[in-house]
Amino acid sequence: MTTSRGRRPGSPDTRAAILESARTLFAARGFAATSLRSIASAAGVDPALVHHYFGGKDDLFVAALSLPIDPRAVFAQFAAGEVEDAGERLVRGFLSVWDDPELQPSMVGFARGLIEPSATEMIRHGFLRVVIWPLGDALGIDEPGRRMPLVASQMIGLVMLRYLIAVEPLASMPPDDVVAIYAPTIQRYLTGDLPPLP
Amino acid sequence: MTTSRGRRPGSPDTRAAILESARTLFAARGFAATSLRSIASAAGVDPALVHHYFGGKDDLFVAALSLPIDPRAVFAQFAAGEVEDAGERLVRGFLSVWDDPELQPSMVGFARGLIEPSATEMIRHGFLRVVIWPLGDALGIDEPGRRMPLVASQMIGLVMLRYLIAVEPLASMPPDDVVAIYAPTIQRYLTGDLPPLP
Repeated sequence: MTTSRGRRPGSPDTRAAILESARTLFAARGFAATSLRSIASAAGVDPALVHHYFGGKDDLFVAALSLPIDPRAVFAQFAAGEVEDAGERLVRGFLSVWDDPELQPSMVGFARGLIEPSATEMIRHGFLRVVIWPLGDALGIDEPGRRMPLVASQMIGLVMLRYLIAVEPLASMPPDDVVAIYAPTIQRYLTGDLPPLP
Repeated sequence: MTTSRGRRPGSPDTRAAILESARTLFAARGFAATSLRSIASAAGVDPALVHHYFGGKDDLFVAALSLPIDPRAVFAQFAAGEVEDAGERLVRGFLSVWDDPELQPSMVGFARGLIEPSATEMIRHGFLRVVIWPLGDALGIDEPGRRMPLVASQMIGLVMLRYLIAVEPLASMPPDDVVAIYAPTIQRYLTGDLPPLP
């Protein structure tokens, strides 16, 4: 453990330094290739402190996303229920976060960051694996790793049109109408008959 | 007309100068607020030359996108046919461009440019109005300005996942399977029963 930066273990800026190193390394090397040990080393702290502040690598990754909410906690709220209604619950839960005026600005900032070319690796092996695929497990669907990318392809496009580009009529459409349009699409991707996926 | 840059009317770099001015002004002011006259003025050429090289504002806009193909010509090819099959034709025609190894790199570059925050105005009032909404007219659907944003929300998300982020199984899925998954979604957005759109 190096203390060359004069940072005391447990001081408030230890946590910030770990987060900063995590963001830098996850972005530069991708999620899979970044170890907690390398993050600790880059932050100049003992690896045990990383565990102390953030638990495991998944938790540190989610913390490094700087979202206003932990998406896994939100997902857990609407994942419970019958799988036949999962499409509607997923779209409605998604809108409850994105349409919230207090959360929306930071969600839009987050989405803009995700679509940077430099974020590609972090999405492919981090965000999707840590946040999105487990949602499929929580919803109780078969083959979440194969079906959730289809769900993501619709929800990302909806975010782009409704919130980032703000195209009408999507931008100001009441949530119930958005649900009526998109829930059947999502339900089919979650549980419908699809060609055998590779 | 100014000739201060020493550019002769009709010389090859006149065309390039017009395109450069068009890109700059469309991006800075948006499609609606940019006149052909202001583009001519910024390029230091007579407005008649803009018409000579590019026809109208829509054509100049499409030329300024620097796509490897004119999307309107490609759309015209697969727009013809029964509206009941429009979803399948649209997804298949879309993939025929995006999966083409010669076209794909520049299409990916184009898509990355479109999702920059600075491109928002150009998409909302330019790309969608000049390229995407007319496709709805060509396909013969009702209310293209209301239904095509739904189509765009799915196709943009598919582009993100299959080509930009390259998430499996979408990234290497055979085109026929992509069509089987997405054509019913697109068909419903084009012609299906939806809640009354605002």
